[in-house]
Amino acid sequence: MSQLMKAMDLLRTIFDKYAGKEGAKDTLTKKELAELLRTELGEPEPQSKAEVDKFFGMLDNDGDGVISFEEYVTFVAAITVMLSS
Amino acid sequence: MSQLMKAMDLLRTIFDKYAGKEGAKDTLTKKELAELLRTELGEPEPQSKAEVDKFFGMLDNDGDGVISFEEYVTFVAAITVMLSS
Repeated sequence: MSQLMKAMDLLRTIFDKYAGKEGAKDTLTKKELAELLRTELGEPEPQSKAEVDKFFGMLDNDGDGVISFEEYVTFVAAITVMLSS
Repeated sequence: MSQLMKAMDLLRTIFDKYAGKEGAKDTLTKKELAELLRTELGEPEPQSKAEVDKFFGMLDNDGDGVISFEEYVTFVAAITVMLSS
């Protein structure tokens, strides 16, 4: 498996790990997103409900109340570019 | 380093590996992109010039003749979602 395939595979594995904790297995709830942010991106404790809600709203492009894999990848892509600039 | 940070770091490392081969070190030329596609995504040989040009045009959003890191990440995000659907 090439390095790029590994990186893309890892993005999927990470998403599935958190999306599988509660609710539908293929979307992130607010709680799952907050845990992903804390664990994977070192978000400081505690994130206020308002902070998580605001952040969630930014990612939830279609407003269906959960974060799809596509919305998650869009978010990760934005952070990847931000961390590199 | 968290799994997500590793994945994002890997995306950068891969980009830098190909972007560093010719021309500016922080952008991909057509030749570098063709090599990345062949090596990382197993694109079959040979890609016709027309195929590479067409593909390149799709990625080069600002039309400056090279692929920036942001354009590359947008492309990888699209493929990641496509491979997962």
